Amino acid sequence: MRAVVIHGPRDIRVEDRPDPTLHAPGDAIVRVVAACVCGSDLWPYRGVRPTADPHPIGHEFVGVVEAVGDGVTSVSAGDFVVAPWAVSCGVCPQCLNGVQVACDRRASWGGTDDLGFPVDGGQGERVRVPMADGTLVPVAGVTDPDEPLLKSLLTLSDVMGTGHHAALAARVGPGRSVVVVGDGAVGLCGILAARRLGAERIIAMSRHTDRAELARRFGATDVVAERGKAAAAAVRGLLGGVLADSALECVGTSESMDQALRCVRPGGSLGFVGVPAGGAELPIGVLFSKNIAVAGGAASTRAYLPELLEDVLAGSIAPGLVFDAVMPLEDAAKAYAAMDERRAIKVMLRPSGEAR
Amino acid sequence: MRAVVIHGPRDIRVEDRPDPTLHAPGDAIVRVVAACVCGSDLWPYRGVRPTADPHPIGHEFVGVVEAVGDGVTSVSAGDFVVAPWAVSCGVCPQCLNGVQVACDRRASWGGTDDLGFPVDGGQGERVRVPMADGTLVPVAGVTDPDEPLLKSLLTLSDVMGTGHHAALAARVGPGRSVVVVGDGAVGLCGILAARRLGAERIIAMSRHTDRAELARRFGATDVVAERGKAAAAAVRGLLGGVLADSALECVGTSESMDQALRCVRPGGSLGFVGVPAGGAELPIGVLFSKNIAVAGGAASTRAYLPELLEDVLAGSIAPGLVFDAVMPLEDAAKAYAAMDERRAIKVMLRPSGEAR
Repeated sequence: MRAVVIHGPRDIRVEDRPDPTLHAPGDAIVRVVAACVCGSDLWPYRGVRPTADPHPIGHEFVGVVEAVGDGVTSVSAGDFVVAPWAVSCGVCPQCLNGVQVACDRRASWGGTDDLGFPVDGGQGERVRVPMADGTLVPVAGVTDPDEPLLKSLLTLSDVMGTGHHAALAARVGPGRSVVVVGDGAVGLCGILAARRLGAERIIAMSRHTDRAELARRFGATDVVAERGKAAAAAVRGLLGGVLADSALECVGTSESMDQALRCVRPGGSLGFVGVPAGGAELPIGVLFSKNIAVAGGAASTRAYLPELLEDVLAGSIAPGLVFDAVMPLEDAAKAYAAMDERRAIKVMLRPSGEAR
Repeated sequence: MRAVVIHGPRDIRVEDRPDPTLHAPGDAIVRVVAACVCGSDLWPYRGVRPTADPHPIGHEFVGVVEAVGDGVTSVSAGDFVVAPWAVSCGVCPQCLNGVQVACDRRASWGGTDDLGFPVDGGQGERVRVPMADGTLVPVAGVTDPDEPLLKSLLTLSDVMGTGHHAALAARVGPGRSVVVVGDGAVGLCGILAARRLGAERIIAMSRHTDRAELARRFGATDVVAERGKAAAAAVRGLLGGVLADSALECVGTSESMDQALRCVRPGGSLGFVGVPAGGAELPIGVLFSKNIAVAGGAASTRAYLPELLEDVLAGSIAPGLVFDAVMPLEDAAKAYAAMDERRAIKVMLRPSGEAR
């Protein structure tokens, strides 16, 4: 099969890889219908995070189950499934607490599972899914989704669930005012999640016309282009002299964390989901004196999948709009470059058998 | 009048000070019936926090209103009142949000109010209370509380409300398991608060027999003497292989914060109320990967006072047991030394007119 392999900074190749086979009774083989590039894939792409050895990459995909091991009960061949960005068993205390990202048997796409078997990357034609019952979510009644639905289903793998996690962590709810720092796919999904949770005022922070437009479409009531202290002043101006009840930090740099903290009122809440990659810190003195609650981290999108899937199927949210480009899998290198250069918000990749 | 003045490290003096008078229409004059020494008073006492100039000290007191300004409507002469540890207006957006410690007009006992008038310290015979309507809470039906009730009322000024804040910040509730780091008055009140909020398992961390005994009386189901990694292992042992849902950090040092974080399960919550004085830090990488929510800070005890007062008056909680020593105000220096040397958990001070 064909699959994407990262060799080092800016070195993305599509290569022949062995077709996956079932190794354990809990395994499933999924034929990938669509995958995508994540903002966090750009960290190794840019060399911010080192790539020690070449390895398959990609942790967001949807597809059709081709085969399952004897122990699999929740999905079967032919099912259309969404794979969350992390593999989880579904039965350990962490999974039962809804914190699948801390699963005792957690594995990552493109890595190795706890039994020592390699796990395929999501950016490829096929993937062996360990612990399929704990990991995959079947999409009832759907076998061949049209492109808009396909895109929305694909966001449930990561970005929509991550935006929702940020909003929950920031205690967004009816009547609350919310600032969203970050206009990438996660930030945009955070806006959509905040609207879904009933936020009254949603202030998007963006300097890009196309992203700001999508932010408004997703529910942003205001867009602020300022940064740092000026951004906080703009928020105060919009909210009649007070700061926001909640802020979503969806970038992961020290600047974005600082900006998000500045925008939260005393006693407010900050939800952070940007992978800390730029020296982001939590200043304990500020949190103490302002009583700002901080929560978030890696999102257990598996936990949110059933609930968000229902809304996607009902058509009440359309997070797939974050995909502004679709490319064949063979063009993966171009997809990375487009996202790196911010020419695209998010790129969907289609294996050749699926391209239209 | 007589009042305590701090001159520098280990230099606590009881001096003659001018009797306070009404300066603003919102002022009240309170005759102090009981005051006390706070763990945070020990920071300047130990020189950890510098004392630039001698100033009155003490931020926890209860007493009887002697006079009120024309603008005061919620208390009147003769009322027995509890003063929270911070002065607040009660009407600004922060106060209305229940975050009185961030009041737009906040003032501190022993400092200066926003009008520029000096504010007396709580460790003295009398105190001018600015913004009395926003600050003081009258105790209906009580004029001359007996000593056990007096002690419990006095804890509502700070430590009981602060322990409650820690428990709320750590999302303590029915069925939750809780670790409490710190066996001072705040930590002990945190245990009492956790029990009051319905926690199922409360693990106190203590190496002192008397404090551990009080911890059990307040509701601790287990006491752990280990520290650091060994403490986390002990918690895991007690909870059947998992870590705690919640941890209360009630000290403020880097060691205590580290210990509290080690004891929380993925997706759990940490409430911190220890004034950060020892380089305590929040490691963003750990919070991100373990999804640990952090909240807390300076407690708006004014917000919790009505609710906790009701329980004290009903006799369902008796936080006053944290006071294991009572001294006349004139012995304030001895009270500081006793707490500094951990010979006392918490010392109540009685002005001479009130001593028995």
